[in-house]
Amino acid sequence: MKDTDRFWSPALRGLRAYTPGEQPQGDGWIKLNTNENPYPPSALALQRMAEVVNDSLRLYPDPQALALRETIAGQHGLQVDQVFVGNGSDEVLAHAFMGLLRHGRPVLVPDISYSFYPVYCGLYGITCQQVPLDDDFRVRVADYLQPNGGVVLPNPNAPTGIVLPLDALRWLLERNTESVVVIDEAYVDFGAESAAALINEFPQLLVIQTLSKSRALAGLRVGFALGHADLIRALTTVKDSFNSYPLDRVALAGAQAALADQAHFTDTTQRIVASREWLATRLAALGFECLPSSANFLLARHPQRSAAQLQQALRERKILVRHFNQPRIADHLRITVGSQAECEALVDALSDLLAPIQNANEVASA
Amino acid sequence: MKDTDRFWSPALRGLRAYTPGEQPQGDGWIKLNTNENPYPPSALALQRMAEVVNDSLRLYPDPQALALRETIAGQHGLQVDQVFVGNGSDEVLAHAFMGLLRHGRPVLVPDISYSFYPVYCGLYGITCQQVPLDDDFRVRVADYLQPNGGVVLPNPNAPTGIVLPLDALRWLLERNTESVVVIDEAYVDFGAESAAALINEFPQLLVIQTLSKSRALAGLRVGFALGHADLIRALTTVKDSFNSYPLDRVALAGAQAALADQAHFTDTTQRIVASREWLATRLAALGFECLPSSANFLLARHPQRSAAQLQQALRERKILVRHFNQPRIADHLRITVGSQAECEALVDALSDLLAPIQNANEVASA
Repeated sequence: MKDTDRFWSPALRGLRAYTPGEQPQGDGWIKLNTNENPYPPSALALQRMAEVVNDSLRLYPDPQALALRETIAGQHGLQVDQVFVGNGSDEVLAHAFMGLLRHGRPVLVPDISYSFYPVYCGLYGITCQQVPLDDDFRVRVADYLQPNGGVVLPNPNAPTGIVLPLDALRWLLERNTESVVVIDEAYVDFGAESAAALINEFPQLLVIQTLSKSRALAGLRVGFALGHADLIRALTTVKDSFNSYPLDRVALAGAQAALADQAHFTDTTQRIVASREWLATRLAALGFECLPSSANFLLARHPQRSAAQLQQALRERKILVRHFNQPRIADHLRITVGSQAECEALVDALSDLLAPIQNANEVASA
Repeated sequence: MKDTDRFWSPALRGLRAYTPGEQPQGDGWIKLNTNENPYPPSALALQRMAEVVNDSLRLYPDPQALALRETIAGQHGLQVDQVFVGNGSDEVLAHAFMGLLRHGRPVLVPDISYSFYPVYCGLYGITCQQVPLDDDFRVRVADYLQPNGGVVLPNPNAPTGIVLPLDALRWLLERNTESVVVIDEAYVDFGAESAAALINEFPQLLVIQTLSKSRALAGLRVGFALGHADLIRALTTVKDSFNSYPLDRVALAGAQAALADQAHFTDTTQRIVASREWLATRLAALGFECLPSSANFLLARHPQRSAAQLQQALRERKILVRHFNQPRIADHLRITVGSQAECEALVDALSDLLAPIQNANEVASA
């Protein structure tokens, strides 16, 4: 124990923080490791941001972020008091764990899921109970019918990409009525149906979305939550006890304009979905097994090659993909769907790396 | 109790959140209520921000904020691992309460001070012990020599504006060696000496600064902490368990450029200090008692007029000042030092409002 360790709050010791994907310095990388959007943000959003980079930055932003929340509410057919915004959906999730999921009972999350959930639990002293996905890596909602202080499900799930149909979620919400169910929809716009449509039916439902993925604004840090006004008030109470102004003026303006640009959104998400289907087909042709993804990434394993070694070999060719060294998916790579050109470069590199195996397989089956 | 209250984490009930100063909508206000800078941010910073409002926003920011932290470290003669950055100094403070001040013993703060400190304590289940300022509203460091889980002192203090000399702080640091001492230097650039110079001597010292005041970037949300690398690691552990990327790309770039623009900084802070001295003299001439301020605001009371009524009367003239309805300072107004023109408008309005009293006093003393 170091001399200065006594200064750390005891609850911090043993905390295992989240490790974000690598952000490489320098150019020339094909970055398929952090599920960023390969296409630029809305030009209208960039223009609006440039407009607010001016003397008004000397003034605090609107602590209530009213204009942005009104835009979001309008898009989802909700009232403004059913919308909360934060500094990226990670902050919104953190406030949800603090404000809505700390009840002295375990919070249920899938065993293969966003690895930040157990970290939040650690930070706030919540027991995290991991519920196994089934053998096909699917969420079985019936497994969540057990005493809990809350349920957190990403939809589509990450890093599997597998979607949970809305009727399965409804089935769960009809039975889990005494604790909050958080649906983390970071990837919803690439092929899932939003649970936002269920909010006025279920007061325990909190839906969280982000502008980092489908809106191509990971660098701007904006996320939001939708839910019953009483849930939103809990998040606001945490926020106003933590940081009154979580979103700067540029982020507020940019987010509002990006959400309003439906044409750019539709165009780019459709291109990503098309590239995903193309990439899945090509990966299968190379011998990979891909889970059926409704997100902007694929989780894939090659039966004859170690995922860690493949990741490293791709890295040497300046292609980054993500590998999670954890049970059940240690054989898999999570590959972000890049632009079509990036997907093609990846397939070329993999073809090259797998050529010896391909050749051997052809000989064996000949 | 509402039907949905069961969803709130129990610890949230009874929490009294911080109330930020009013951000009025519409134009024409003279805003002397939230200690914003009356001058624009550095033109170089605005230019740099405009440059990064581009396609790169689709990518996550550097989670380590290395470039910005190197700039800050260089300016204070510290190593980069002695610097932490966050989404406004409010977030940095919150992480300090969570990571360094939760020890099951009370945290000591002045009774008249930044009203967010007790709120953080409430959020994290820390007992907040308020230590009275002396009758002249000064911090007596000897009063802090009592068992504690940490000490938090703003310097200059807010809303008094009174500075604590560095030798008094050193005296305290030599005696309070077993818990962290946080010096909140939000207003340091308007007339106090930074405790950053003591960091390499005292491993328990954490200094927190912001770009919201002297750098005129309240709308950008950037703050930072300086301290022993082990204290910074604690803050980083909290951050990486909360939100990996607290600063967006625009804020990172703008903050770095703003800190580098020393000429603009010196010019604008000097103008504010000059206006503060002018305003203090004129307020005294109107019968106000002003505390000696080293910040960009004045705490003033008029012996013959209620502060709440004065605030309201000023508001009707579209001038906002802040009134804290709390013991010991309920008779005072906290007046941000605006531009010289704004200060003159305030003095004109007050002269007008106080004319009946002035006249009566003149008659009485004739």
